[in-house]
Amino acid sequence: MSHRIITIEREYASGGREIGEMIAERLGIPCYNREILQMASERCNVSMDYLETAEEAAPKSFLYTLMLTSSPTRTIEENLPLSDKVYIIETNIIRELAEKGDCVIVGRCASYILRDLENLFNVFIYADTKSRSERAVQEYHVDERRVEAMLRKIDKRRETFYSINTGGNWYDKDNYHLCLNSGALGLELCADIVVETAKKTIY
Amino acid sequence: MSHRIITIEREYASGGREIGEMIAERLGIPCYNREILQMASERCNVSMDYLETAEEAAPKSFLYTLMLTSSPTRTIEENLPLSDKVYIIETNIIRELAEKGDCVIVGRCASYILRDLENLFNVFIYADTKSRSERAVQEYHVDERRVEAMLRKIDKRRETFYSINTGGNWYDKDNYHLCLNSGALGLELCADIVVETAKKTIY
Repeated sequence: MSHRIITIEREYASGGREIGEMIAERLGIPCYNREILQMASERCNVSMDYLETAEEAAPKSFLYTLMLTSSPTRTIEENLPLSDKVYIIETNIIRELAEKGDCVIVGRCASYILRDLENLFNVFIYADTKSRSERAVQEYHVDERRVEAMLRKIDKRRETFYSINTGGNWYDKDNYHLCLNSGALGLELCADIVVETAKKTIY
Repeated sequence: MSHRIITIEREYASGGREIGEMIAERLGIPCYNREILQMASERCNVSMDYLETAEEAAPKSFLYTLMLTSSPTRTIEENLPLSDKVYIIETNIIRELAEKGDCVIVGRCASYILRDLENLFNVFIYADTKSRSERAVQEYHVDERRVEAMLRKIDKRRETFYSINTGGNWYDKDNYHLCLNSGALGLELCADIVVETAKKTIY
């Protein structure tokens, strides 16, 4: 019997991180989000800022990867693009966290990485552009004139990160037990729904 | 203050109709699905079978519609394609039902038709292909060899019906308060979640 893991994927500025923290607090379990990046940063002795850029970096072309991997002076692992290395390190960290105990994990394809676990509950948080824009401006201090472009850009990065690493589609509802519109429902109610539903399924 | 309306859009054989009926029973309110088709059939004195075909018929080309509407011997309303006429009749019926009292409405773009109501709660029910195929074979007696093609075909019809009549995308999560994976959660739990969440929002 595996530990009980709740994973959250979330559109940028939909409040998914906050909802993850509320769920964890109500269930008395840890919530991992940037902690995973922090751990990866310590393991490979690279700054978090640099890792964050690499984490969601655009994929390199096939020819570029071929050129790198055919270099005779480097091992296959050395030749992997940094984004792949970060993914491998994060995958190991996520598996270790899931083996340690019940938890909430935000982002980073955790639902895919842990897909074979028995007690896994996967959530997608989304919201309309208006409420996401408001949150991005108020809480992340994004420039009001650039906020919609920012939403598109970061969602696109997350979608690409998911697609490169899992071969699947981030937006595909089939990956999730439920998808919640935090703009229409509010963060508290989203957390309620996840806690109540998780209690009836994996708890 | 408007009545409290729960709308359900659902992938074919996802159990959305059954979930709608469970929700209605738990809240002690009526559930409308094929009843809307029945009422439309009585209003225009056309058989339900024929209406059902027209309801989700493929759209006519712009030129064909222009040719029809330019006929000098017919009124504009007479010249409308049957699928448009059915949509207009169903729209009126859905508005009348929503004015009559609290209810659940399954399908037929009700979330769009009633979008200006204050107490509207919109749900999308989906499921993985395997569980939908099983339900289609067991409950709707669809031929096992043709079931996946059938799922695709009927979903495509619903998507097209929605898109023609609303200009929107049936699959767009922003249209819904929540989207539930009935294959992963089971029908009973989906009904629980909708009832509990509706009680905390529109009730």
